[in-house]
Amino acid sequence: MTERNNAWIKEELAMEQVRNNMLKIAENSFAGTSTGAVLDDVLGSFGKMIRPRLLLLCSAFGPSPMEKSERLCMLAAMVELTHLASLIHDDIIDEAPYRRGKPSIQGKYGKDAAVYAGDFLIERVHYWMVKEQLFDAALILSKTVEDMCIGEIGQAVCRYDVNVTADQYLNNIKGKTSSLFSTACKLGAMEAGCSSDVTEKLRCFGEYLGIMFQFRDDLLDFTSSESAEGKETHKDFRDGIYTLPVLMALETPEGKEALLPIMKENASRSLSSGEIAQMEKEVIRCGGVKRTVEEIHRYAALATEILDSLEDIPEAQKIRRMLDKLESI
Amino acid sequence: MTERNNAWIKEELAMEQVRNNMLKIAENSFAGTSTGAVLDDVLGSFGKMIRPRLLLLCSAFGPSPMEKSERLCMLAAMVELTHLASLIHDDIIDEAPYRRGKPSIQGKYGKDAAVYAGDFLIERVHYWMVKEQLFDAALILSKTVEDMCIGEIGQAVCRYDVNVTADQYLNNIKGKTSSLFSTACKLGAMEAGCSSDVTEKLRCFGEYLGIMFQFRDDLLDFTSSESAEGKETHKDFRDGIYTLPVLMALETPEGKEALLPIMKENASRSLSSGEIAQMEKEVIRCGGVKRTVEEIHRYAALATEILDSLEDIPEAQKIRRMLDKLESI
Repeated sequence: MTERNNAWIKEELAMEQVRNNMLKIAENSFAGTSTGAVLDDVLGSFGKMIRPRLLLLCSAFGPSPMEKSERLCMLAAMVELTHLASLIHDDIIDEAPYRRGKPSIQGKYGKDAAVYAGDFLIERVHYWMVKEQLFDAALILSKTVEDMCIGEIGQAVCRYDVNVTADQYLNNIKGKTSSLFSTACKLGAMEAGCSSDVTEKLRCFGEYLGIMFQFRDDLLDFTSSESAEGKETHKDFRDGIYTLPVLMALETPEGKEALLPIMKENASRSLSSGEIAQMEKEVIRCGGVKRTVEEIHRYAALATEILDSLEDIPEAQKIRRMLDKLESI
Repeated sequence: MTERNNAWIKEELAMEQVRNNMLKIAENSFAGTSTGAVLDDVLGSFGKMIRPRLLLLCSAFGPSPMEKSERLCMLAAMVELTHLASLIHDDIIDEAPYRRGKPSIQGKYGKDAAVYAGDFLIERVHYWMVKEQLFDAALILSKTVEDMCIGEIGQAVCRYDVNVTADQYLNNIKGKTSSLFSTACKLGAMEAGCSSDVTEKLRCFGEYLGIMFQFRDDLLDFTSSESAEGKETHKDFRDGIYTLPVLMALETPEGKEALLPIMKENASRSLSSGEIAQMEKEVIRCGGVKRTVEEIHRYAALATEILDSLEDIPEAQKIRRMLDKLESI
């Protein structure tokens, strides 16, 4: 009990250091400008910081996490800033005034502020990577951002395509979401001196966790209470981004019959709230939500299998709890 | 004569290498996507490549440019790709379907393609910087992109501000335009082993050249033949970006009287072609164009002074010719 408490305290101390590093890396002279406001906004309230937490927890499997704690907290900050930069740039593309009920960055501060805030953060991450001589990590993180771009581009190519497959969708989310999860795990393991076998296991674990994370996010449109209003929900569907619940329903003959006509209309005009509600009903009726939940459980089992093969340290328990949280719908 | 011909041939060979490096760094699997089309577009027709040329020419002042030619050609490619990435992202902000009569990138391929193409290029530059162990250059280039962001943000802050000064304008263009010119010169000098004194002189020379380049670009709106139509010209003015010719005219009492009412209207509504033509006439009448030309000559003299203080090698003559071209209006 004492040990676990100690571990918990240390993790919170480390996360405090990560937050300080993020502020240090993102330090700027933009006060009073809209770019400064974007940066204050995204850095003003730290979210769950799931990626830096994963990085630090994975480092515990190595022989020397404590010796490397400064570098680890720096890497964790860089991973989270990379995530924030990608959110800022995604907001430009969506062109939505809102994101999940909250004003979007470009809606609030304008496109120019969003472009430069994202570019600035990415530059700063690169600058500090080289300054801190984190060269291997710099190469890995650059490749990861590239994979994120590839995933986003793949998603853009599939938009409004009624023939898009679950496989294509999976490839896209592996790039846009999962790659930064797996990189967080890999960087933590690598930096703490894990063997290449353990590092690869943790990288793979991160990939599964990222996939579950995205599936869960996709489900929200079909399970959140907002959906009753029919407003602002199903933005992905309206934008022609067909997520797993839709694609799973579409794999059934009755789903195809019910959804294809709606999807064809969707490609040519803006759907009414009634049509969106109808689509939601059909996706649920044809098992799209149920099968997505099953997929989440399947990836959770794969991730658990990896965890079971690793040393049973206190941090493994914490990672298990993160997994449980993502699995519970 | 033979020597100069030889030098010229070597420069063209080096530029060929720079172009090959650019294609290598930007290699991607995006064929058939709009992001791929953006990259093909910006890499398909190489422009004047003024920044990489400057980098290579400045390296000739060092003791060992030939030994370092591979690294120099790599740096030159990275500087040009950084320039291209900034053009791509600038197009998102302008939201213009056209840029100087040609379709803009985001107008042609959409915002998402532009965001990811720019992000991708920047990531690739960083990746290769670390892979090629160009660490000092990586730090300098990161800081330069940051300065470019700061200049763009400064420009955004000044938009539609009738009290903006020529000093503020100069600060903004030093960031957004001039910083990459001075970095090109500095990186070439540094990598070729120039003394810190010569490196600093060449950096400063690049800064002056960049300023002249921007002044010249600003003049185009007032001197190009398109202006007769009143269409598509003066996009900067319409966007509330007041450039040197306007600010110089505004410094005279008669300019203030004539221009302030137009600028105040400009902040609240879209001006007619007639009003834009009137603005242009007033700027010319009040000496805005003439004084901008004088400023170009003043910076050309400062740049020449630096060149005169350096060794008189064949490449110095070439740099002088670049300067002459920029000075001739």
